[in-house]
Amino acid sequence: MKKYKGYFIDLDGTMYRGTEKIEEAEEFVKKLKEKGISYLFMTNNSSKTPKQVAEKLISLGIPAEEHQILTSSIATANFIWERKQNASIYVIGEEGLRKALEEKGFRFVDENPDFVVVGIDRNINYEKLAKACLAVRAGATFISTNGDTALPTERGLLPGNGAITSVISVSTNVQPIFIGKPEKIIVEQGLKMLKTKKEETLLVGDNYETDIKAGIQSGMDTLLVHTGVTTKEHLKHKEIQPTYTVNNLSEWHVL
Amino acid sequence: MKKYKGYFIDLDGTMYRGTEKIEEAEEFVKKLKEKGISYLFMTNNSSKTPKQVAEKLISLGIPAEEHQILTSSIATANFIWERKQNASIYVIGEEGLRKALEEKGFRFVDENPDFVVVGIDRNINYEKLAKACLAVRAGATFISTNGDTALPTERGLLPGNGAITSVISVSTNVQPIFIGKPEKIIVEQGLKMLKTKKEETLLVGDNYETDIKAGIQSGMDTLLVHTGVTTKEHLKHKEIQPTYTVNNLSEWHVL
Repeated sequence: MKKYKGYFIDLDGTMYRGTEKIEEAEEFVKKLKEKGISYLFMTNNSSKTPKQVAEKLISLGIPAEEHQILTSSIATANFIWERKQNASIYVIGEEGLRKALEEKGFRFVDENPDFVVVGIDRNINYEKLAKACLAVRAGATFISTNGDTALPTERGLLPGNGAITSVISVSTNVQPIFIGKPEKIIVEQGLKMLKTKKEETLLVGDNYETDIKAGIQSGMDTLLVHTGVTTKEHLKHKEIQPTYTVNNLSEWHVL
Repeated sequence: MKKYKGYFIDLDGTMYRGTEKIEEAEEFVKKLKEKGISYLFMTNNSSKTPKQVAEKLISLGIPAEEHQILTSSIATANFIWERKQNASIYVIGEEGLRKALEEKGFRFVDENPDFVVVGIDRNINYEKLAKACLAVRAGATFISTNGDTALPTERGLLPGNGAITSVISVSTNVQPIFIGKPEKIIVEQGLKMLKTKKEETLLVGDNYETDIKAGIQSGMDTLLVHTGVTTKEHLKHKEIQPTYTVNNLSEWHVL
């Protein structure tokens, strides 16, 4: 085990499951805070604002401030800002995504946008998908907050943003730029926010396909916690293993 | 050129374009009728009933009766009927599909169906997609009327049923059984309806990827007409060419 200067911490399956708290999460984050170690919550969930996420964490006893939250929506807004500050955008998505784009001053348009941005939208309809397809065919840059194909809920696995995004990619034959984990884009923004180097930062999460792959692809150490998506049985078959694996975060000794 | 006992005729791009008539279509079908040659209109469009399709053709001067229309919805209902006559179905789709399934007496259910059936639905929403995903994950047989990725309209190319279907296949990682062209399923049903052999039946259509491929895969002769989707430029690059190609149907001599 190694001493890390910074931690990236996943949310759903790592800090909580839906509305249910994961017991060991609170102690883990409190230890980081006591030791003065930097940490950033990094989530593919585009639907909530950093403020909403921080409030939820605090309500679960987990110390968190707004500036410590990096959602795929914030990362998407940053990504576009670096490319075109006065961009026009056609957006499919919920409050977290709309707010993040609004705060950068981007213009929302229905036709001929510079960018089409797709995040999870549980009010999706045919007209929204039609407008996105027309815009992508007309040459708009196609961005999707994250490629998660399924959304774990108490009802079971519902369609995730990657599945909704596929309507547009299949129809237009244009592949989107994905921003969230396992892509490097969100990880690199996280490193800038924490001001730590990748060699001294640990990525913590429950999902091999998003969290752990994001770390591997970015050349970071990773900690897989079996409180969410990826089971031991699943993990066994992966060629590249996480740097560390624990059953729950109480097993992790913060140095 | 050869004398054919039966003709399969595509609709959109072959008989009409949206609401606009294709001039040469009327004369072509009238000649078939005069000569007593059997013909069947075969369409991937699942949204209309055979009655509605026949009425539209008649309004354009094209002789057509209900029993001469094979939609992907009718083919889907037949396909399920051959497998399970008292099937329960969760359906996403418009009137043509619902009516076709209703007429077979299938039960529509929201949970634990035997089959999930997806056809174009311009009132698609997240809840419909969620129910379909849950049912497919629970083991329902997943059927899609057709795999067309784009729908030509006066606004441009909008998402087709294949693109909508991809939400479920991407989310569940289960591939559907497609019924419409270019699949053989609809073609084989057409041959039974016309009571002709495939060697003596000609498949006529404007779209290489659906119509012509359906003919090729079924071992039938094909006639591509350049009044719709596939241009000469596109056709040039195809390894397997249609048996015949014409600019419009007045160039086709009915023997």
